[in-house]
Amino acid sequence: MTTPVFDTLLLTGAAGRLGTELRRGLAPLARTLRLSDHKEIADLQPNEQAVICELSDKERVLEMTRGVDAILHFGGAPLETAWETILDSNIRGSYNIYEGARQNGVKRVVYASSVHAIGYHRLEDNIDARSPHRPDSLYGLSKCFVEDLGQLYWDKFGIESVNLRIFSSFPEPADRRMLWSWLSFDDCIRLVEAALTAPSTGHTVAFGISDNRVRPVDDRLSAHLGFHPQDNSERYRAAVEARTPPPDPHAPAVQRLGGWFVDLGHPDDEAK
Amino acid sequence: MTTPVFDTLLLTGAAGRLGTELRRGLAPLARTLRLSDHKEIADLQPNEQAVICELSDKERVLEMTRGVDAILHFGGAPLETAWETILDSNIRGSYNIYEGARQNGVKRVVYASSVHAIGYHRLEDNIDARSPHRPDSLYGLSKCFVEDLGQLYWDKFGIESVNLRIFSSFPEPADRRMLWSWLSFDDCIRLVEAALTAPSTGHTVAFGISDNRVRPVDDRLSAHLGFHPQDNSERYRAAVEARTPPPDPHAPAVQRLGGWFVDLGHPDDEAK
Amino acid sequence: MTTPVFDTLLLTGAAGRLGTELRRGLAPLARTLRLSDHKEIADLQPNEQAVICELSDKERVLEMTRGVDAILHFGGAPLETAWETILDSNIRGSYNIYEGARQNGVKRVVYASSVHAIGYHRLEDNIDARSPHRPDSLYGLSKCFVEDLGQLYWDKFGIESVNLRIFSSFPEPADRRMLWSWLSFDDCIRLVEAALTAPSTGHTVAFGISDNRVRPVDDRLSAHLGFHPQDNSERYRAAVEARTPPPDPHAPAVQRLGGWFVDLGHPDDEAK
Amino acid sequence: MTTPVFDTLLLTGAAGRLGTELRRGLAPLARTLRLSDHKEIADLQPNEQAVICELSDKERVLEMTRGVDAILHFGGAPLETAWETILDSNIRGSYNIYEGARQNGVKRVVYASSVHAIGYHRLEDNIDARSPHRPDSLYGLSKCFVEDLGQLYWDKFGIESVNLRIFSSFPEPADRRMLWSWLSFDDCIRLVEAALTAPSTGHTVAFGISDNRVRPVDDRLSAHLGFHPQDNSERYRAAVEARTPPPDPHAPAVQRLGGWFVDLGHPDDEAK
Amino acid sequence: MTTPVFDTLLLTGAAGRLGTELRRGLAPLARTLRLSDHKEIADLQPNEQAVICELSDKERVLEMTRGVDAILHFGGAPLETAWETILDSNIRGSYNIYEGARQNGVKRVVYASSVHAIGYHRLEDNIDARSPHRPDSLYGLSKCFVEDLGQLYWDKFGIESVNLRIFSSFPEPADRRMLWSWLSFDDCIRLVEAALTAPSTGHTVAFGISDNRVRPVDDRLSAHLGFHPQDNSERYRAAVEARTPPPDPHAPAVQRLGGWFVDLGHPDDEAK
Amino acid sequence: MTTPVFDTLLLTGAAGRLGTELRRGLAPLARTLRLSDHKEIADLQPNEQAVICELSDKERVLEMTRGVDAILHFGGAPLETAWETILDSNIRGSYNIYEGARQNGVKRVVYASSVHAIGYHRLEDNIDARSPHRPDSLYGLSKCFVEDLGQLYWDKFGIESVNLRIFSSFPEPADRRMLWSWLSFDDCIRLVEAALTAPSTGHTVAFGISDNRVRPVDDRLSAHLGFHPQDNSERYRAAVEARTPPPDPHAPAVQRLGGWFVDLGHPDDEAK
Repeated sequence: MTTPVFDTLLLTGAAGRLGTELRRGLAPLARTLRLSDHKEIADLQPNEQAVICELSDKERVLEMTRGVDAILHFGGAPLETAWETILDSNIRGSYNIYEGARQNGVKRVVYASSVHAIGYHRLEDNIDARSPHRPDSLYGLSKCFVEDLGQLYWDKFGIESVNLRIFSSFPEPADRRMLWSWLSFDDCIRLVEAALTAPSTGHTVAFGISDNRVRPVDDRLSAHLGFHPQDNSERYRAAVEARTPPPDPHAPAVQRLGGWFVDLGHPDDEAK
Repeated sequence: MTTPVFDTLLLTGAAGRLGTELRRGLAPLARTLRLSDHKEIADLQPNEQAVICELSDKERVLEMTRGVDAILHFGGAPLETAWETILDSNIRGSYNIYEGARQNGVKRVVYASSVHAIGYHRLEDNIDARSPHRPDSLYGLSKCFVEDLGQLYWDKFGIESVNLRIFSSFPEPADRRMLWSWLSFDDCIRLVEAALTAPSTGHTVAFGISDNRVRPVDDRLSAHLGFHPQDNSERYRAAVEARTPPPDPHAPAVQRLGGWFVDLGHPDDEAK
Repeated sequence: MTTPVFDTLLLTGAAGRLGTELRRGLAPLARTLRLSDHKEIADLQPNEQAVICELSDKERVLEMTRGVDAILHFGGAPLETAWETILDSNIRGSYNIYEGARQNGVKRVVYASSVHAIGYHRLEDNIDARSPHRPDSLYGLSKCFVEDLGQLYWDKFGIESVNLRIFSSFPEPADRRMLWSWLSFDDCIRLVEAALTAPSTGHTVAFGISDNRVRPVDDRLSAHLGFHPQDNSERYRAAVEARTPPPDPHAPAVQRLGGWFVDLGHPDDEAK
Repeated sequence: MTTPVFDTLLLTGAAGRLGTELRRGLAPLARTLRLSDHKEIADLQPNEQAVICELSDKERVLEMTRGVDAILHFGGAPLETAWETILDSNIRGSYNIYEGARQNGVKRVVYASSVHAIGYHRLEDNIDARSPHRPDSLYGLSKCFVEDLGQLYWDKFGIESVNLRIFSSFPEPADRRMLWSWLSFDDCIRLVEAALTAPSTGHTVAFGISDNRVRPVDDRLSAHLGFHPQDNSERYRAAVEARTPPPDPHAPAVQRLGGWFVDLGHPDDEAK
Repeated sequence: MTTPVFDTLLLTGAAGRLGTELRRGLAPLARTLRLSDHKEIADLQPNEQAVICELSDKERVLEMTRGVDAILHFGGAPLETAWETILDSNIRGSYNIYEGARQNGVKRVVYASSVHAIGYHRLEDNIDARSPHRPDSLYGLSKCFVEDLGQLYWDKFGIESVNLRIFSSFPEPADRRMLWSWLSFDDCIRLVEAALTAPSTGHTVAFGISDNRVRPVDDRLSAHLGFHPQDNSERYRAAVEARTPPPDPHAPAVQRLGGWFVDLGHPDDEAK
Repeated sequence: MTTPVFDTLLLTGAAGRLGTELRRGLAPLARTLRLSDHKEIADLQPNEQAVICELSDKERVLEMTRGVDAILHFGGAPLETAWETILDSNIRGSYNIYEGARQNGVKRVVYASSVHAIGYHRLEDNIDARSPHRPDSLYGLSKCFVEDLGQLYWDKFGIESVNLRIFSSFPEPADRRMLWSWLSFDDCIRLVEAALTAPSTGHTVAFGISDNRVRPVDDRLSAHLGFHPQDNSERYRAAVEARTPPPDPHAPAVQRLGGWFVDLGHPDDEAK
């Protein structure tokens, strides 16, 4: 599975938390990793190329998507933030990425969507990939937009997309919610690899969550990817439960997939 | 049903094809109709106020949404067009409308979504309001965005939305597709009135299509609106069939809800 | 349809609001109507027999169910009330009715269930007959119990049941909610007649609601009954809307099928 | 709707009960009706051509399907009968028809499937066009086969099929079951016309049943055909009920869509 | 997971088969286990309090539910029995438990529901938690009642419930049916612990069945509990199959989830 | 599990690829294996009886099905071939097998259906056993026919059927598609054993596919069989990927369950 099946992969958001992990994890899959971020990328390896670029800069994006086999689109604002930033980095920026793919003949885009595209659904609803969008933030709303953008580019232009709704990908579970929402870095890499190498994906939505004791979503509709998480959060449970208070079962942040994002106010209010 | 139940309604896109019809049709519902468009609005009536405004101008939008009971958001680009226009008028513009509603305490937004938000679904799938988005154009993609925006503003801020997926609202059916996709102006007015006056809507998606012989969508999930179309396209059939060639049953534009929109190329290519 | 197809029908709750209407409406269907209530039954007609009886009195119930072709079970407490009353009249009483049917070989029971068996569902969910129970009161809970009791007696003893979830059956719509929930007396009679005369029902659940503009439930699973309501509430709309304030769309009593029942406290508290 | 939209239509089973009605009803749709049957066809009209032919005779079938725009396949054994007849007339015969369509470039086949393809489903299940096959006879089994054959020829060869599951198409309802299962001849013609003229059908399954009081199937998945039955059985009810005994609600023939077909033994036993 | 997260847990039916196992299994979860039964409870441990009480005695139940964090309601008649016993112990008794929870502010009830609430469903239907009730006995009917009672107390009073539909919890599989329906005591304890400690449950229905080779129900709708059975029945298979005859595949007791309960007659007949 | 639970099992297609494996695998289950094929069967063992017979020979089939406990029907044409062969061997032949079962009182038939009965469904649809037939060949069409035949013989004559939709059962995965579609011989034997020994099956459809990384079908509707594959294709992946080119994600043969069967032309054309 680890002979380089790709010549060149483009990874956006390469300087970010997940980008850094993916550089390590995906190195065996491609002869060249082209890395993009708006800030500097540290420790460049011989198999890596760096491109410093704002995703909202269409010319630069068209240029850097030239000659790549597939795009791992992990760039853009990674959290709830002001509308203008979301609009520029996530909406305009992702449009530019898909336009780059279309104009340069890239076959597949693997996109870091998010649980926050569906954050208002309840755990007990056990939703699947066909359940309607219910974003919990402007950030999540932009994820919904890019999922629909990918659907359009598949239906109209034949570009495949895999939308990975990543839950909580951190070194380890940081709070009680992450005991169920955690996606280990290694499982994240497995998921991206599955998305890159599946024979045919069309427009696929998949849930990025480790093999935790609680896994409150139904992922049968991405079975064709062959993703099987190998990690789970149980070994962190005792420590997490010891240092955090028991949850209030009536709190929306406990009942809904999006967690504390559902409690956030409007980011533009806070900017004032 | 026709005593004015609202003090002030805001109608965006008031100078457009549907906007003009709605001015007439909704007059009995409100003491004042505030009309907005980016171009001049003709024949202002005593019960009407005019606001000339680009929806992308946030300050103006915040101002004009002050003191209104509900918003009929029919503004923005009405057809496939260049990305920058879609982004500015439909995405940024609709965000401004929802922000106006939020900041000014408007209770409900009735939005002119479109069949083009789901244009790649097949007629024979008989989709309902929970079926996934499948936009057929950048225009349709912006409609998906606003539907999701409305979902967020309902879940997070308690603002109700009714998303009317209008099919083909014209004086009469202009081609064979419109024999099934037609929404008469009178039915359009009935639909908007139902959306405005339903006791409770939360975030509702409804299909805007007359009582045509073929009605290839399942609208039971908007039954709580109480919309019952009264017109149908049969009296136009003979004339339309006489002047247009029989359809090719294998053509995507015949098989898919979006019609000829699915055949459109990328608008930015054509701009070149 | 009006030749007497039954020899003897038993109607419980015959002195109640609906019982009185049914006496009139069902007279043509049976040679004899046996009427039961715990209070006196006025104006006995030549084709009628009266039985004064508490449904909790098992011996009397076994006796009065002897020799009947079918039972219309409309008796028991008709509204939210103290637990001991619900337990005695609705739970124990309905058990006695079904035991009477079983021991006396009665073929079919038509039961006045209620919207309050599913009162916590939202209008916009457009539930059907397979959606889970969500009672809104002890009264509704007893309706759920009798529906399940009927299921058991069908599966185990072959006694057919039609459970009519009656919404609001009054002379006319008394408030804004009844503009959608109203079941006219004539439609109520049509529904009961359909339930009595359908060739085969097994255990059927049907919604009792007139052909109102808003009909927020999906009744396709009782299509085999052939019930088609003929009345609707529109002619009452103007008057009702004139004398009642507009609803608050965020009020649970507006959003949920059960209406003001969802706002009721616990009846045993109020007894104190 | 009645200008001849087809040059030549082929109708198999033209001498049968429905074939005879269709000759009359479809005459306005085509310049020429080519009529086929294994027995002689009476009263040939100027617009009609007759072909006497066993459907199992492949050469004859290939020949008679040449130069036709669409095929109305109503031929074959019309009732339960011996396996060898079913195999020859319905299975082999229908294969020949589809091969004729394929080899001669015919665009669409409208097939007289039957309720007996799904005869073991219960009325109260209210099945739709995606519910699994449950044939009630060898006859029904052959209908299932041809529906699947049509699916293959659509998926692989692009030939459209409309499978009309005709319930009971007779001059009038002959027994109590037909009070719900009846398809008037006029509605049958409307259904066939809708199937022939719908812009795009792919592989469609539709239920052929009039607008009877009881209509125990869900036909929303053929909404794209635009079939709306205009007749119903009510005016025959009194007479039918007067001359037939009440049904036994526990009888399979009453509970299942297929009626008395579910009571039939194996036809090859009876042949002995 | 085993630091005492609760101060006081109430366990009803503590002297019963499962109650005895739960005393052992749940001891680490709470500082105090309050044990209730109508008969004496043997071998009281230092961490245990005993309350002898009929559940139908409302005053005693209100008293014993005071000051507890959660209730494990395993009391009441454990098998099919006379109606008066079911009514008193299971219906009235469970109402008293929920009233105790409500009046004393208990947050969550974990209830021993049963496969017999759904016993008439077929194995091959692979039902999930939203499938309708189909009780197979008066015992099962009372389980349905308490599930609905819990739904009401969640919707109206905010008390969480987890309804564990326990299949066959015995030391080992006693017959061929238990090869699939078995729930080991250890898995039963795991299930109860998961139900007690899940962050948020609302009103949840879960299936109590070990990781047996055949597991004919779909439990994805309780994924948020995080229950993963660890035992299975395979090591008992050879012995069970050796000492019992092969099943009759046409026997209802083999085809239906409820097993031999579906063959039981009416308990009140047998009492005679 | 391996004490002979059957006296005599009949295996058709015993000289074929799977037949040969099943002789070995099923030997422990029956005192006598009766083997049938149209060609000679090699290496007859003491527990085996051989019958050389064309399945289209009804008399021989009736004879050889006498005195058997269950039938494993693996005979007939194993690949796409001319219509006349399909008709004779698979359609007529399977009818004869079911008639043998009926006339001789055989209780259960385990049938080697195929992925090609549903070959036009997409991997990403993740279909289950209730999804409609979509055959990809005349071969697949005959599999659909026999599945429906089994449904009829269950509904009407009470003969149980298990239809195993075998994907790719070969010694090892021969191409990239088989990395997901592979069914190891040992898993095939496990599946047949589960189908034979499940207590009750009615008419069951199950998917025959090993525990491969990608398993693009939902098999919960055969959970009552208790089949759990033990093998998977991963150890063959590197070698297969090394010797075969990467798939084209837009190729129908990659997107559809049926693989290269969807690319096949009509077999009767090739015969010319």
